[in-house]
Amino acid sequence: MDLAKKRRTSRMFSSNPIDFKDVTVALETACQAPSGANYQPWRFLIVIDPQMKRRIRSACERGEKGFYSKVKGDWKDWLSSKGLSWRKPFLEEAPLLVLVLSERRAPYSVQSVWLAIGYILLALEELGLGTLTYTPSITEGVLEVTHVPKKFRLEAILPIGISIDEKTKETRRALCEVAYMESWGHGFDKAALPRIRAEMREPRIRRK
Amino acid sequence: MDLAKKRRTSRMFSSNPIDFKDVTVALETACQAPSGANYQPWRFLIVIDPQMKRRIRSACERGEKGFYSKVKGDWKDWLSSKGLSWRKPFLEEAPLLVLVLSERRAPYSVQSVWLAIGYILLALEELGLGTLTYTPSITEGVLEVTHVPKKFRLEAILPIGISIDEKTKETRRALCEVAYMESWGHGFDKAALPRIRAEMREPRIRRK
Repeated sequence: MDLAKKRRTSRMFSSNPIDFKDVTVALETACQAPSGANYQPWRFLIVIDPQMKRRIRSACERGEKGFYSKVKGDWKDWLSSKGLSWRKPFLEEAPLLVLVLSERRAPYSVQSVWLAIGYILLALEELGLGTLTYTPSITEGVLEVTHVPKKFRLEAILPIGISIDEKTKETRRALCEVAYMESWGHGFDKAALPRIRAEMREPRIRRK
Repeated sequence: MDLAKKRRTSRMFSSNPIDFKDVTVALETACQAPSGANYQPWRFLIVIDPQMKRRIRSACERGEKGFYSKVKGDWKDWLSSKGLSWRKPFLEEAPLLVLVLSERRAPYSVQSVWLAIGYILLALEELGLGTLTYTPSITEGVLEVTHVPKKFRLEAILPIGISIDEKTKETRRALCEVAYMESWGHGFDKAALPRIRAEMREPRIRRK
């Protein structure tokens, strides 16, 4: 829970090498996640070679240029307020990339793989490594460059390294803004906690 | 990382009450997850009322009956080998349910919410609570019973309680079975680790 609180996205990485062992440990953590019918639909493609990183970056930036030329309205404003553009230098700057893939035909493959990505983020935080879940706008180019078979989908690219990103963590909504009790619209606030806790210990008498 | 290793799915829960505070702490952990454009598309509906749990169970079992009557082949065999059926008693037996919802129009809403579910699973494990990520075959009935607006999707129901499920953790594939190096098909095994670690510390000279 502390790791979740501390963890924030990093888009800038030191060129210092990292211990490859740490990356395998974080991915082994992901392998422990539950998945639809225990299908374990995750695959990981680890990229260290600078030439391969450059090709992946080029493929991604080609897609992003198209995306950024079309994006409009609120989302465009949000992207530029965050200083985001089609440029993805972290794909070359991070000492290592992990391409996270899912097996298309597996039950709940997207869901299972993203749950496992949650495990990876917390494991990397525990190891003192930074990352972001970069989702390329167009994935075909990357899959071609890396020879990934058609039956797998690219879910995210995780550049991994020592973070030198000085941005603070984006603020989060409080739980009472996103949680309800019993049925939609019935919120709870901190003031209601003692009552609910007491009710949980001494359940209300069942209505007939 | 230890929590991930230890954690396993529970489908049977003690009727003992749990501390409601723990559930809010686990959901607060989820709120710390990253999300597409920091949209935080997760919503949580916490259900304690026995009557509401019963209505949710009925709605889910109606859907499961349809699903189980149609399922065939490998998946049918897998389900029956695991003792799974349309019956979902855990939806009433667990002292508490969390319906996890996603805002449909949010960017990468399914992905973001399942990543956050990964955070919840590890937080609950840290708190000594069991759960499973139950994905109903049909979600309409549940959304109707709980008055959830159409702009939200039901991603999973998490029954939460003290586990009395004695099943062992399902086995997982080793990392070398699901990971590749540099491009698809180039695996690595434990024997290659020292070489890769050395290369990471002293990068290969860039080819021109």
